[in-house]
This record gives sequence, C-alpha cells and structure tokens, in this order.
Amino acid sequence: MQAPAKELPIIAADVLARLRAQSPRVHCITNSVAQTLTANTLLAVGAVPSMTIAPEEIGVFMKRAGALLVNLGTFDGERGKASDVAIEAAVELNLPWVLDPVFVDRSPVRAAFAKGLVARQPTAIRLNRNEFFELAGVGAESGAVAAYARDQRTVVGLTGATDLVADGARLVTTANGDPLMSKVTALGCAASALVAACLAVERDVWCASAAALLIMGVAGELAAKCARGPGSFAVEILDVLYALDRDMLVAHAKVS
Amino acid sequence: MQAPAKELPIIAADVLARLRAQSPRVHCITNSVAQTLTANTLLAVGAVPSMTIAPEEIGVFMKRAGALLVNLGTFDGERGKASDVAIEAAVELNLPWVLDPVFVDRSPVRAAFAKGLVARQPTAIRLNRNEFFELAGVGAESGAVAAYARDQRTVVGLTGATDLVADGARLVTTANGDPLMSKVTALGCAASALVAACLAVERDVWCASAAALLIMGVAGELAAKCARGPGSFAVEILDVLYALDRDMLVAHAKVS
Amino acid sequence: MQAPAKELPIIAADVLARLRAQSPRVHCITNSVAQTLTANTLLAVGAVPSMTIAPEEIGVFMKRAGALLVNLGTFDGERGKASDVAIEAAVELNLPWVLDPVFVDRSPVRAAFAKGLVARQPTAIRLNRNEFFELAGVGAESGAVAAYARDQRTVVGLTGATDLVADGARLVTTANGDPLMSKVTALGCAASALVAACLAVERDVWCASAAALLIMGVAGELAAKCARGPGSFAVEILDVLYALDRDMLVAHAKVS
Repeated sequence: MQAPAKELPIIAADVLARLRAQSPRVHCITNSVAQTLTANTLLAVGAVPSMTIAPEEIGVFMKRAGALLVNLGTFDGERGKASDVAIEAAVELNLPWVLDPVFVDRSPVRAAFAKGLVARQPTAIRLNRNEFFELAGVGAESGAVAAYARDQRTVVGLTGATDLVADGARLVTTANGDPLMSKVTALGCAASALVAACLAVERDVWCASAAALLIMGVAGELAAKCARGPGSFAVEILDVLYALDRDMLVAHAKVS
Repeated sequence: MQAPAKELPIIAADVLARLRAQSPRVHCITNSVAQTLTANTLLAVGAVPSMTIAPEEIGVFMKRAGALLVNLGTFDGERGKASDVAIEAAVELNLPWVLDPVFVDRSPVRAAFAKGLVARQPTAIRLNRNEFFELAGVGAESGAVAAYARDQRTVVGLTGATDLVADGARLVTTANGDPLMSKVTALGCAASALVAACLAVERDVWCASAAALLIMGVAGELAAKCARGPGSFAVEILDVLYALDRDMLVAHAKVS
Repeated sequence: MQAPAKELPIIAADVLARLRAQSPRVHCITNSVAQTLTANTLLAVGAVPSMTIAPEEIGVFMKRAGALLVNLGTFDGERGKASDVAIEAAVELNLPWVLDPVFVDRSPVRAAFAKGLVARQPTAIRLNRNEFFELAGVGAESGAVAAYARDQRTVVGLTGATDLVADGARLVTTANGDPLMSKVTALGCAASALVAACLAVERDVWCASAAALLIMGVAGELAAKCARGPGSFAVEILDVLYALDRDMLVAHAKVS
C-alpha cells in the first residue's frame, strides 16, 4: 500500500470537515432521475447544490460555484448545450469539473459525446466498469485504469464492488459499500457530485476523488447495517452522510 | 372464480422470481415527477430502469430492453416524440409495451393523443377509473372493461380501491392495497412500470399484468402495516417489494 | 401581538381541516428537483397536485384547479412560457397564484423575469431573505417587508430561522421549524405549494399564507424530534403533515 492510500481515511475526514466548514456550491448538470438525491447528498455533507441547465443562467451560476458536475444521464440536446456552456465557464474560471458518463455503454451517440468531453480534460471522471470499457476500449484492470488516467491527464474514480481511484502515479482501492447501493437509483450520480464537492475544497485531485468515494462507500456500508431494504437504505445513507465524522471514517475504511 | 385467477398468487410469485433471476431492463418514457420512484420500484424487484427520452438514443436503448413503458404524465412535445419513436421500436423488435394514460380525464389534448396510442395496440394499459371513462366512454364496470380490452385487443389493468385485470376472455379482481397508496405521488406510474417489467418475463399478458398489480397491491398492504404516514409508507413499500416472496404473496393475496 | 396573529394556530387548524375536506387541486409550474416532494407535501395535507408545463394543456388544467404555484427553480424557456400561460389563466379565472422566486439572488436574468411577474401582482410571494433582498433592493426587516407587500399589493411570506408573513396592514412572526429543514432540498418549494393550497380554501390571503407557513414550521419542528438526519427528516415531515391536527398546531405554534 502506498503512503497516500494509507492516509486516505484521515485525508477524507479532513476533506469532509472542510466541506462542512466552507459549504462550497456545486453546479450540477445532471439527469432528471438523479437531481433530488444528488441535491440531498450534497446538502448532507455541507455542500450546496445548484442545478439550472438554462444556457443563459449557467455562466452566472458558475461564477460563484466551487465545482461543476457534468452527468450524461437522460441526455438530450438541452443538456448537451448546457454541458458545453458549463464546461467552458469552468475552464475559464479555472474551476474543477467532473464527468459522469452514465450509460455510455448503452448508447453510441452518448459515448461519442462523452469522448469529446474527455478530450476537454475533465478534472476527474467517475464511472463504472462497463462505462470505462466503452470509453477506454479496454477492461478496467488497475493498470489499464492508471494508464487511461495518465493518457487523458485526468483522475479516474471507478466504482463497483470495490472502488479504485487512479491518476497517472497513484492508485488506491477501497472495499467499502454494500450491494444495496446498486438497488437505489442515482447513487452513482450522487457519488460523482460528491467528487465535485471534494474538488472544491481539496486541490489534490487524486486525494479529493478518493476521499469522495471513500466517504460514499463508508456511508453506504454503515447505512446498510440499519436498512431493511432499498427504501430505508436511501434514507439511512443521507442520515449517515450527515453524521459521518473522522472516527467513523477511520474505524470503517477498507483501503488498500 | 376462474381457475387462472385462483392461481394468481403462485403465478405472481413465479413472475417475481423470474424478474429477480433475469433482471430485464424496462425502458420508461415517463413523467418527471415519477422517474425516481419508478426507477427504485423496478430496482427493488430486480429489474433495471432506463429513462432517456432523447429520440436519437431511444432506438439503441430499446434494442437491449425487455419492455417499454409509455406514461403520459407531464406530457409535452418532447415526450410525445419520444413515445412515438419508442413505440415504433417496440413494435419492430416485437417487445411488449404498456400505456399509462395519466390524467387523460383532465386534458382533451392528452386524451386525443392517448386514443391514438391505444389504436397502436399497447400490450397492456394500466389506468384508474376516471382515465378509463375518458378513454372508453363508459364507466369501469367489469363487463365494460372486458369489452374494451377485447375491442382494443389489449389487456386492461384498472387500479383503485380494488384492482381489475381483463383481456377479452379472463378477468380477475384483487382487493389488496391501502388508502395510503393514493397519498404518495406516482405509485400508479410505478405500478405501470412493474406491469412492463412482468411482461418482459411472462408472455401471457393477462398473467403478467395481473401478477404486477397483485405484487404492488400486496406490497402496499404490507407496507401500510409498518407505516406511520405517507412518508414512511413510500420507504416501506420499496423495502417490502425488495423482500417480497412466494409465501408473503400467497398468504396475503385477496383474489377473486 | 396583533389579534389575528394570536389566533393564527386556530386559523391554521381550520385551513388544514378545509384542505382535507375539500381536496383542492394545485397546479404547480415548478422545478424538476422539487416536483416529487412538492407533490407528496400537497397529498399529505389532502390537496392534489398537477404539474404539466405543456402550454397547450395548462389552460384546461387550470380550469379545475383551485390555485397556481409558479416556482422559478431550474428555470428555462419552457418553464417561462408555461408560467406566462398559467398566470394568464389564473388571472382570467380569478384564481390565486403564488410566486416562489427561487435563487433570484444568483441570476440577474431570473431576477428580471421575477420582477416582471411581481408586477403582475401574485396573490402571495414566498421567498427567503436573500431572494427578498434581490427583489426589493432592501434587507428583510419587518418594516421593509411590510412596505414591499403594501407597495406590490401582495402578501409576502418570508422563511428562514423565523418566518414572517406581511400584507400592508398585518404582520406575524413564527419561530417554529428546525435547522434540518435547510438540509433537505426543495422544502421551501414545497412550502410555497402549501401556500397555494391554503389560498384555494381561504380567501384572506394573509391568513392563508401565515397558516401555510405555520403548518410547515410546526411539522418541521415535530419531524426533527424523530429524525436522525436529513434522510429520515424528509420522511418524518410527510408523516407529520399527514397526522397534523388542531391540538398539535395549538400546542406547538410559536407565534408573535
């Protein structure tokens, strides 16, 4: 285990404390299924969501935002244009932005659009194994993920049974979470928003991304202990995110 | 009671087991209020939702889907076009599709559009008594519902205090559910999505439709026993759907 | 304390009883993040939501509605047009309408649009302190709020740590609620919908607006007692709204 990976629970706790102290606003161009859970996830950790996709408003919303999320779920022309305007604003304002290429493995049109966005160098990309395969053209082995991150000059946060965060030089694997996480719609989308929030308060992109996925994974694992099914799990995970602190992160993080 | 009706709890249990084993994807053109609950309902029974309404993506999403839902809530030009493209794809791919003519009783424009969709012979229609009256021009007596189903060559799933499922030849009434179900938005929409999911794993349309409504009704009834109001009811019903099994269905089904 | 303020808990209880008895329909042009919670809030108090934003349908939906909500969250051209059509219908039908100028403090385009709507004399405006400052150009001191309400010939319902409702002549402050209310997205939007619902059953606009905010505040305060965080709080507040009665309102209202 690399030194930074070992320190990840402490780093995540620090990042979370800064989220609560600084309350950064995260502008989210995200799909209509995910909006409510995404907003509530951000609020639970102390961040503030904004979600307009009207091109004439995005610029001014971005000016006071700390980070941007571009999520390609329920993608359409309107969201395409919104993404374009928002990314341009992020680049101009030097704000971090996260790409969540939802379901690119199911739609060639969307995959092509996503590849165009990757070429614009998102600060981080959060995706699952199928989506990675579609974008990278290779399976999500650690080495391939690291190579893709290096080649695209981004940080990749890959989620699934285990999570993996890689830039060109560092790589960490976390084994928290719970199968119930796949039974609640948009939890992956919410995790991407959390990556954006962490980027707003932590300049080291790899640390911020890994912190976000660890926070989500530990919260999911703790929520599952109290849940009776996916309905109560969706409630519990927000309660846990709200209560999460250094001790809980350190006690439960499974990092390697 | 007809023989098939008597066997309905067992049929429903089999259909549910197949949902969990096969995890069919259900493509949902549905309203923005219902999307999250619909997705979570499908996930709770083992199915997988997809919800894009972008015309250029629907074809490719339909190719790997097991069924289609067309729900007319918060209807607009965009959803109208999406419905058209999706139904065409369903017909071409020989996939079952379900029509949910939400609130046609409140909007002549929507009612006219819905009648056009009925003429394209949906595999099944899920609606309430007011919506049936608007479409059929007669009250929702069993005989009239059966006649409408026969005439339109579809299966009608009528929900309310009691549920009724009819094709031209078979008819079943179920008396599960709870008044709290009408206090949570979009539960009817979610039930229609469940009909689509069941159609993806059961070719007998009447059996699939009746199974879906029985599953929803029993889940609602059991959820109400643990709920303190509509907030906790919405949580409980997802937990119950996730835990539902043969024994629970057989023990609680009220079929006649 | 003015006499009407003193009587507010009883007035609110009466309004709530009428909501449950009359089940008015509230048409909501609202943002996509808020739709589900808004619908469920209305259902919990006995009202009925409708949410179409298709211009060709709004007129007919308004005809059988009891009130209109125009909420400017996730604002775009489509919602702008829908607002216009809906307000015109409300005026023609002599129905009350409520403006919720979400985030006008973050977007000059939206602020300009909102000011145009204020000029059309909404029956009531529900907003927070930052939004008030943006619209009124002065801070939200009681006197300034009362003056603004008088000048604009409307009733202002200002929410925050304390809530304040003012027309030109009457002013009430309520101190219910809980900090958790700011950790659940769209609760303010839902409160505005509740103002619209109360206007559908109570012609005294100040009484209706104050009743709505008191109902929401007391429900929030009681919900917080059972909640473990924002996830369970969002569940509890719907359960409390559903169970809320005269005794609970009278026992817990903090009116001055």
